[in-house]
Amino acid sequence: MKYAAKIEVSLKPGHSNPEGETIAHLLKELNYQVERVDVSKVYTVTLEATTLVEAKVKAEEMSKRLLANPTKDNYTIDIVEQ
Amino acid sequence: MKYAAKIEVSLKPGHSNPEGETIAHLLKELNYQVERVDVSKVYTVTLEATTLVEAKVKAEEMSKRLLANPTKDNYTIDIVEQ
Repeated sequence: MKYAAKIEVSLKPGHSNPEGETIAHLLKELNYQVERVDVSKVYTVTLEATTLVEAKVKAEEMSKRLLANPTKDNYTIDIVEQ
Repeated sequence: MKYAAKIEVSLKPGHSNPEGETIAHLLKELNYQVERVDVSKVYTVTLEATTLVEAKVKAEEMSKRLLANPTKDNYTIDIVEQ
């Protein structure tokens, strides 16, 4: 079966967020009343697995081994059958 | 009122996706059965607006003026009152 694992990786609170700060600054210069901007990345991985549970386990592994840095990142996973 | 606008910017289909291809390649080297990886970015903008509709209009403008490139990107917007 084919699944799409949507893995969203974001910075843990308190970590330096230079990209978000830059964008917030630019939006303020464009006269928007912006308080803050947080930036995260979404990896949509299309993968083969026999069950939804197996797809979730694999997506967890991929996040830990490659996509997220446990020191500075949080991640969430959503799995959809395709 | 304060709102969080979650703006997800992704590549339009058919555009070159080197980051996703690199990650798919690495995951295959780690023995995962991956078909493809798509990468998108989420900007969570915390902004002031008087109504949810105004927050949505502002988030649309920000997307068009700064966050998305209309030639190559699609974007979706979700607004949540805070």
